[in-house]
Amino acid sequence: MNTIELRPPYLIFLGNETCLTYAKTGAGLVEWRRELCSGQLNLTPDGIDLGLPQMSVEQAAADGVGSLVIGTASVGGGISPEWLDTLERAALLGLDIVAGLHGSLASVPRLQQAAATSGARLVNVRVPPPELPVGSGRKRTGRRVLMVGTDCAVGKKYTALALARDMRRRGLNVDFRASGQTGIMIAGGGLPMDAVVSDFLSGAAELLSPDNSADHWDVIEGQGGIFHPGFGAVSLGLLLGSQPDAFVVCHEAGRNHLIGWEGFALPTIEQVIERTVELGSLTNPAISCVGVSINTSRLPPGDRSGYLEELSERLGLPCVDPLQGGTDPLVGRLLQTPQTVVTDGEVALI
Amino acid sequence: MNTIELRPPYLIFLGNETCLTYAKTGAGLVEWRRELCSGQLNLTPDGIDLGLPQMSVEQAAADGVGSLVIGTASVGGGISPEWLDTLERAALLGLDIVAGLHGSLASVPRLQQAAATSGARLVNVRVPPPELPVGSGRKRTGRRVLMVGTDCAVGKKYTALALARDMRRRGLNVDFRASGQTGIMIAGGGLPMDAVVSDFLSGAAELLSPDNSADHWDVIEGQGGIFHPGFGAVSLGLLLGSQPDAFVVCHEAGRNHLIGWEGFALPTIEQVIERTVELGSLTNPAISCVGVSINTSRLPPGDRSGYLEELSERLGLPCVDPLQGGTDPLVGRLLQTPQTVVTDGEVALI
Repeated sequence: MNTIELRPPYLIFLGNETCLTYAKTGAGLVEWRRELCSGQLNLTPDGIDLGLPQMSVEQAAADGVGSLVIGTASVGGGISPEWLDTLERAALLGLDIVAGLHGSLASVPRLQQAAATSGARLVNVRVPPPELPVGSGRKRTGRRVLMVGTDCAVGKKYTALALARDMRRRGLNVDFRASGQTGIMIAGGGLPMDAVVSDFLSGAAELLSPDNSADHWDVIEGQGGIFHPGFGAVSLGLLLGSQPDAFVVCHEAGRNHLIGWEGFALPTIEQVIERTVELGSLTNPAISCVGVSINTSRLPPGDRSGYLEELSERLGLPCVDPLQGGTDPLVGRLLQTPQTVVTDGEVALI
Repeated sequence: MNTIELRPPYLIFLGNETCLTYAKTGAGLVEWRRELCSGQLNLTPDGIDLGLPQMSVEQAAADGVGSLVIGTASVGGGISPEWLDTLERAALLGLDIVAGLHGSLASVPRLQQAAATSGARLVNVRVPPPELPVGSGRKRTGRRVLMVGTDCAVGKKYTALALARDMRRRGLNVDFRASGQTGIMIAGGGLPMDAVVSDFLSGAAELLSPDNSADHWDVIEGQGGIFHPGFGAVSLGLLLGSQPDAFVVCHEAGRNHLIGWEGFALPTIEQVIERTVELGSLTNPAISCVGVSINTSRLPPGDRSGYLEELSERLGLPCVDPLQGGTDPLVGRLLQTPQTVVTDGEVALI
């Protein structure tokens, strides 16, 4: 029973894409894991520049690159026939091919054969590993903070990455735990919760943040939203299995309705806090909210800090925009939360 | 996009099983769908007798039987090699082979080939159909009542079947909707919610109880329990997608801890009612509890009616044991619940 694990360093493959919007995965890798990105490979002269050295698959293999990561996702999300020569050469040279596409790399006979020849892996980060366990609810050692959202696409992944970065800067012992495909590529591992069979959802979340040392923090990427008619179950499974000590509510200022579900009003931040505490206390009675992360990009720049201050006063919690000054107030609050200690199966707060 | 659908009538296959405990599926079919069961087939002279005529696969084919249903589930739940000759003959004769086993019928080359030759289907009721949708939350026409539980294995399926039977007897327009494998065999269709990929959980529940006439009731089998650390997410997905007008809480008298999760105390019935209303009101603001179904088998016979009366007084709701006098008080309450009407996309209560 395992999570997905990628083999760094990476060659970012950009195919013949020319629009940065469709290269979010590659851009995310460079933003958050620059030290693991050895180079980029474009198939077209006017391709996207992520600021990495141009590199052929042959150079990459010679330089000890572990994986060719497909850094683009076009609409539809399939494998383009124009990519195949390059991907096949990479696989033959022993590079793992990593993708988050809808199509299966292994269903392309040329790639399957090339990988079999060299021993390279074809990794689809959308596909969970087999034999996930059912959630036990057993209290694990170490500490956990989970991102939850008023909706999908409100900045849960970004907040988790920024929080983990800021905690690391303060010398804390911390890991970012990815629960979705782009996060998995950035983290180099994780579990795509939305693709896990329902019965094993909280079991998968338990695997994602295993027992750890008492001073260790897992910063867990969230999924969906507990008030979401389509994805609420994914959010609950992740919450129950993560058994977080703390959570951060993520929200986009100015959004009033669930994106793509226009008949549903957005819950208030207060409602999300209350519901998350209620549901999360089943597996961690000490769960508490340590603050709010707001994407303020839709507000006029002059209104942003006022919005955060007002919200912070209303909630009595630190409210930040990670893109406008980082997450330090959240870290401060996190460090004040009581620590749960497990001794001989007994759980206590200190 | 479809639910599973079985082809009646059935030949119940009991293999070489001699213990009735392991033939629950077959016994359930005979109890609830006697009219669809043409015969039984034992491979051993001291096999289980479900009271059906003994029938060979050749007789079954000649009599127009649609499916051979594997009515046993041994520990481990695989396909026994001793069964293969019979199953292969049945498939060659055009009978669908229906199983709820862990092993895949289609992975046995002899069966795969026999089915391909005759056009018979190999149906595993544990495997959801492909291309399930994401839950939309759209309000559907017709009425719905969902079973929810204080735990797993408290009688949710039995209660739903008894309730649907009692409603039908009163002339109501009603369907039992199965969300688990045994229920699917009895219903002749349904969706195994626990095997659905998380992202499509409430979408699957929406498919399970589609738009219907205004006077029609779907009686929906429940899964798991909303206070369950392993299966809470399955319960929430089913609740959100079912958008029930009403629900029945199912409970086993005398149970104090989640079965198999001994560290977790059972929630009270009041807690389950409150939480279900809270969560369910997202997709149906009119949701209400219409009563409680108790499995009283662990109580001394003399204490049972007193237990139900006391509970009913405490909750102000009808409380029944479906095995001890049926579910009529629940039906009565159900018929008093306000009806939600959808007109031009607007939802109103009448």
